[in-house]
Amino acid sequence: MILTVLGTSSALPTSERFPSAHVLNAHERLFLIDCGEGTQMQLRKNRIRFGKINHIFISHLHGDHVFGLYGLLSTFSLLGRKDPLHLYAPENYNNILQSHLNDFDIHLSFEIDFTPLSGKKPVQILDDKYLTVTSFPLQHRVPAFGFLFREKLAERNIIKERIEEYNIPTVRIAAIKKGADFVTQDGTVIKNEELTLPPSEPLSYAYCSDTRYFKRLASFVKGVNLLYHEATFDKSKDDLAMTTGHSTTLDAARTALNAGAGRLLIGHFSGRYRDISFLVDEARTIFPNTYAAIDGKSFKAGDNNTP
Amino acid sequence: MILTVLGTSSALPTSERFPSAHVLNAHERLFLIDCGEGTQMQLRKNRIRFGKINHIFISHLHGDHVFGLYGLLSTFSLLGRKDPLHLYAPENYNNILQSHLNDFDIHLSFEIDFTPLSGKKPVQILDDKYLTVTSFPLQHRVPAFGFLFREKLAERNIIKERIEEYNIPTVRIAAIKKGADFVTQDGTVIKNEELTLPPSEPLSYAYCSDTRYFKRLASFVKGVNLLYHEATFDKSKDDLAMTTGHSTTLDAARTALNAGAGRLLIGHFSGRYRDISFLVDEARTIFPNTYAAIDGKSFKAGDNNTP
Repeated sequence: MILTVLGTSSALPTSERFPSAHVLNAHERLFLIDCGEGTQMQLRKNRIRFGKINHIFISHLHGDHVFGLYGLLSTFSLLGRKDPLHLYAPENYNNILQSHLNDFDIHLSFEIDFTPLSGKKPVQILDDKYLTVTSFPLQHRVPAFGFLFREKLAERNIIKERIEEYNIPTVRIAAIKKGADFVTQDGTVIKNEELTLPPSEPLSYAYCSDTRYFKRLASFVKGVNLLYHEATFDKSKDDLAMTTGHSTTLDAARTALNAGAGRLLIGHFSGRYRDISFLVDEARTIFPNTYAAIDGKSFKAGDNNTP
Repeated sequence: MILTVLGTSSALPTSERFPSAHVLNAHERLFLIDCGEGTQMQLRKNRIRFGKINHIFISHLHGDHVFGLYGLLSTFSLLGRKDPLHLYAPENYNNILQSHLNDFDIHLSFEIDFTPLSGKKPVQILDDKYLTVTSFPLQHRVPAFGFLFREKLAERNIIKERIEEYNIPTVRIAAIKKGADFVTQDGTVIKNEELTLPPSEPLSYAYCSDTRYFKRLASFVKGVNLLYHEATFDKSKDDLAMTTGHSTTLDAARTALNAGAGRLLIGHFSGRYRDISFLVDEARTIFPNTYAAIDGKSFKAGDNNTP
């Protein structure tokens, strides 16, 4: 699981920071999370293959998280995309999108499979061979949702030497990878632990933007390896964060600490901050393993060192 | 008159070329022409002051010329803009814009003064102290309009030494700048030509994108100093240009030649071209004073040398 950050500004982009967008690469399948203005140019710049994006997740209907979608969908279409695109967004967005595409007489070359987000509880919105995605409610000025990407436990890894040693027929291998023991022709039971190694630990990534601090949020992202949490403001702007529905550096760090996250990435920085290193320092007073999200940088889930 | 190019791609932006947008600086007032996705980031990058933009011109309703407008208007509003914004766009765009702003619950902090573009003839759409702007029809797949910015002839420049020499009172100066003679106390008439120097030649800039070639276009931009004309395709793609409503390099050059333009800038390049120097070479076979529009480059109207 490798996360590439495409945009880290809040509502006002700067010359260094584009509006919100992340791409998660899980098993060479790309998941786009939020799609601020300029996302398609950032994808190009970072040489990310458009054709591998089949799922787009929109956290909430503020322009700095959505206004890149019209251009991206048009581009998909001009590139002749045929595969359906799975779009997950607050429930009323499908009508808005369709009406805006109509206004511009845009006829997409592919279907949009829309999943509406709503409600006050975590909901599993995707379940495939490799991972599940769960949306969970945030607290912002409009309905907003976070996303938790969790790898499934892979099968056990069979030890090649044992196949020869015990003359294991090919038809038995699938069952052994799932945990079965093997019985030799003379009836001896070979325990699975002797034949296989455990799979690597499943990894997870969570995206929390935009939101004010609330205690329950940590429970939605319990034990996540890599946590992205907005930190629009420095710690002195607690009141402003509360009234605008945003978080301070300390809010983000507190949620990371309570969740027992492996690593915290902060982003969605207010345009007032040119140098953001002091924001990282603030968060580290509560959660030492904090890093700044930077446009174009990639971060590995499960690897807790500097990217 | 200084033109800064912010975007030179056609519908598919590349890592080097953003979608269409130009800024014309005329007497320190900024005119934004088209507003493709990412325009606000390009404005930041080129250190162009948002507050000096009071007029935005949209040539036609294709996303690569418009999709940056939602973000830019939101940003104006977040920056607390109070001055009205003058928007010139195809006639049905005001409804589209208002409905999309409503969908996102965006309440702008300023008024939009909308001027609808329509019809088959050149129309003067702006007339102020320093310049006029005329829109004229292009030929594209949807209604599309070009824009001609023409400086007014400035007042004559009074020669300071003559004021002392003839003891000219301040109240007479305005009239002399407009061309009046001066009569001294003893009744001698001093001809205006002795008191003033002629103003510099008024400059002009025209924007033609998107359009297929048509002969009458040259007459709309007759004698323009700096002509921007789209050249989406190389000269071999004549048929493709015609069916998609675009121009080849030779089409652009032919219009520049027939118009007697001072200099031609070509842009709106198809994503298939990485190196665009051969497109310039093609256009130069017909119109030698041709240059490529490049993101972030500025060009002076009236200065016909390399930028």
